Amino acid sequence: MKKLMSVAIMLLLSVLVLQAQNHEKNLRTLFDEALTNGQSYPMLEYLSLNIGHRLTGSPSAAAAVEYTRQQMEAYGFDKVYLQEVMVPHWVRGQKEIGRIVNSKYGSQDVNVIALGNSVGTGPEGLLAEVIEVQSLQELETLGRKKIEGKIVFFNRPMDPKHIHTGHAYGGAGDQRTSGPSEAAKYGAVGAINRSLTLAYNDSPHTGMLKYEEGIPQIPAVAISTVGADYLSRAIKDNKAMKFYMETHCEMLPEVLSYNVIGELTGSEKPDEYIVVSGHLDSWDVGDGSHDDGAGCVQAIEAVRIFKATGIRPKRTLRAVMFMNEENGLRGGLEYAHVAKEKGEKHIAALESDSGGFTPRGFGINASPEVLTKIQSWGPLLAPYDLRKIVKGYGGADINPLKDQGPALIGLMPDSQRYFDYHHTADDTFDKVNKRELELGAASMAALMYLIDQEGL
Amino acid sequence: MKKLMSVAIMLLLSVLVLQAQNHEKNLRTLFDEALTNGQSYPMLEYLSLNIGHRLTGSPSAAAAVEYTRQQMEAYGFDKVYLQEVMVPHWVRGQKEIGRIVNSKYGSQDVNVIALGNSVGTGPEGLLAEVIEVQSLQELETLGRKKIEGKIVFFNRPMDPKHIHTGHAYGGAGDQRTSGPSEAAKYGAVGAINRSLTLAYNDSPHTGMLKYEEGIPQIPAVAISTVGADYLSRAIKDNKAMKFYMETHCEMLPEVLSYNVIGELTGSEKPDEYIVVSGHLDSWDVGDGSHDDGAGCVQAIEAVRIFKATGIRPKRTLRAVMFMNEENGLRGGLEYAHVAKEKGEKHIAALESDSGGFTPRGFGINASPEVLTKIQSWGPLLAPYDLRKIVKGYGGADINPLKDQGPALIGLMPDSQRYFDYHHTADDTFDKVNKRELELGAASMAALMYLIDQEGL
Repeated sequence: MKKLMSVAIMLLLSVLVLQAQNHEKNLRTLFDEALTNGQSYPMLEYLSLNIGHRLTGSPSAAAAVEYTRQQMEAYGFDKVYLQEVMVPHWVRGQKEIGRIVNSKYGSQDVNVIALGNSVGTGPEGLLAEVIEVQSLQELETLGRKKIEGKIVFFNRPMDPKHIHTGHAYGGAGDQRTSGPSEAAKYGAVGAINRSLTLAYNDSPHTGMLKYEEGIPQIPAVAISTVGADYLSRAIKDNKAMKFYMETHCEMLPEVLSYNVIGELTGSEKPDEYIVVSGHLDSWDVGDGSHDDGAGCVQAIEAVRIFKATGIRPKRTLRAVMFMNEENGLRGGLEYAHVAKEKGEKHIAALESDSGGFTPRGFGINASPEVLTKIQSWGPLLAPYDLRKIVKGYGGADINPLKDQGPALIGLMPDSQRYFDYHHTADDTFDKVNKRELELGAASMAALMYLIDQEGL
Repeated sequence: MKKLMSVAIMLLLSVLVLQAQNHEKNLRTLFDEALTNGQSYPMLEYLSLNIGHRLTGSPSAAAAVEYTRQQMEAYGFDKVYLQEVMVPHWVRGQKEIGRIVNSKYGSQDVNVIALGNSVGTGPEGLLAEVIEVQSLQELETLGRKKIEGKIVFFNRPMDPKHIHTGHAYGGAGDQRTSGPSEAAKYGAVGAINRSLTLAYNDSPHTGMLKYEEGIPQIPAVAISTVGADYLSRAIKDNKAMKFYMETHCEMLPEVLSYNVIGELTGSEKPDEYIVVSGHLDSWDVGDGSHDDGAGCVQAIEAVRIFKATGIRPKRTLRAVMFMNEENGLRGGLEYAHVAKEKGEKHIAALESDSGGFTPRGFGINASPEVLTKIQSWGPLLAPYDLRKIVKGYGGADINPLKDQGPALIGLMPDSQRYFDYHHTADDTFDKVNKRELELGAASMAALMYLIDQEGL
């Protein structure tokens, strides 16, 4: 009996060792394919240079839907289809004007960009005094008397002391998202936001604002970091200084658009899904290469390299290109809604939406047990320098799936350069390094592989 | 007695906890200083844009010596001085010509760059048939009959499957370093090297060759990766194709130059040294921002932030700007020689010479015990995303110190972009990200701090 037990244990150990060796080999195969025959870079080149930026509802967003659909067909995915979703259709209109009018230094045009979803001033523009604040709280301190009839200038910078720049973004982002409505509660007529970046230059960063229901909607623009400092000095020098802003943006009626979905059917548990994703829409400046063209091509590539290397997943791998992450999240919401209706079982959902930079690991939004299990794969991932496997958020598009139970996982690329380009005219293809992009795709494939093989 | 023991243990534990908390606080202080008042970026801007590239023996190398000396004086280092060193003085002369002469496609100029330390062809140039090889071993297989009188074209690419690009560089580098002399042994009259890069473009990469004593010195150039593929096709299409190369480089008599040294004197053990370093010379193309202007300004900055934050080291911290890493290593050799003569006790020597990219950790060249000790500081370094603390090489300039016993430690920045720029006209200031550079400087300061406090 004792002997039998020993033999059983030996056998079990042998199986475990062989399994680990098999995992090692397969991860190496996935990475080799991405690094030697990778398709993420040429896909991104097409998406960025031939299609360009892809604001939700725009003709180029439709082109991006069709392009990614065709690519997944061409790679021979088992199923490729579109998921209908009604989306907001906000347009920028003609270029914005921002002007410091009667400062000590005379009149001076400054670079501004309307915030996404903002109402426009229209051709008559808006001329008003400016009051600078560092926080939403400061509005309350100042009160309606000091704010009414003015443009509120939110000027709290991102804090450079954070190592992960995402934390610095999170620490300043409320000014852009909630600032305009909060200011309007005190009678403000417009809002100017210091751009959310740690870079110091003259490039303004757009991004979404959220109007609160029942509060007057006031026009809002972002000003560059250099411009913000200039404006701040101008106000200090002459409190009666005025600012002229003219924006032509408007919200048009909703239009039909799509999430784009491609699958590799699982060989053993085809009804269990592992999602890998990015979002197809971008802002209407630059070409959206890092945000989030990179994530889309990496998601397609992560599934393609399974197909190309013949590593057949047990569960169904699903690449999803979400629509409308930037100014509505309709794609993510619709995907989760449909998944719930159909009763689809999602094991995990991965998203790449932090730029196509060198991957450092994953941020995991799941139970402590699942986090521990994924961390236990650390030795298999360390050879690929994926050494940061930590609690995290996941991603905006996959977050609506939360209550259906899957592990939500965000690819964590290095964050240092992301907010130099994020939501600006500088987010262009030339800022993406081929190998960094490829490594990100392979990293997501590697984690999907382990989840597929080992379960969660 | 038992009670006393308990008290003693409690006290000891309290001290250890307090010490760890103190380390945490001081590391945070060092990083905060680098990220909010950092001087590495403006220093690099001056070095790169005002002084430019700094080939050993050139007037601009002398300017870089004086600039870094003045900076360390200005920051109030306790001691700043120059260490004399005689250096080789190789000059490129006028721009190289590379020409495919009678290919199927006619005559075609291609971008080439002379390898460092190469003899020149002179104005008469060199015209010969070309034989392509993939390795030094292949020379032996081919033998003198097939090689004599020809130009040998070393065309083995770097292997993209390596995750760390330094390994890919190492795997192909023998062709550049030893190729020309190895080819000359079989009667070759010239050498062309495929550029050592994973990037596919038309930018040729220079770098040092080593002539073997007693072997005829033949001129050698590097060709871009695109050019290399073009040349390879041309040879296949017409074996009798010839290549014309014209280079005007030459080795002039040695000149006097300097290592630049700045110190912060230790408060308790001033005779024990911790070195932090980079090399001041660069190739004579681009402006040497990543290789290795970055390492020099990071070394100065790593010491400066101790001074600025008032964190007084117990041991002496020494920033060293080595001269002549690229084509002779004279600075590193002289430094080790003088240290030995003076009987200076070096505890550790750090070098940053892998570009100013986002730091990922350290490569440690030391005993297993020392490696384990440094790895035990992992939890203190992880908040700064320094998660890769592994056995490594250290650095070329600090390597001559090896037999004097210090731990040799190389800063390990992310490697993906390094060989896109390395030794080319593309290694310029605009390729350096401010925060990535600052984080590298702070990372070296952090490790120096722990070594200083805890010993090795």
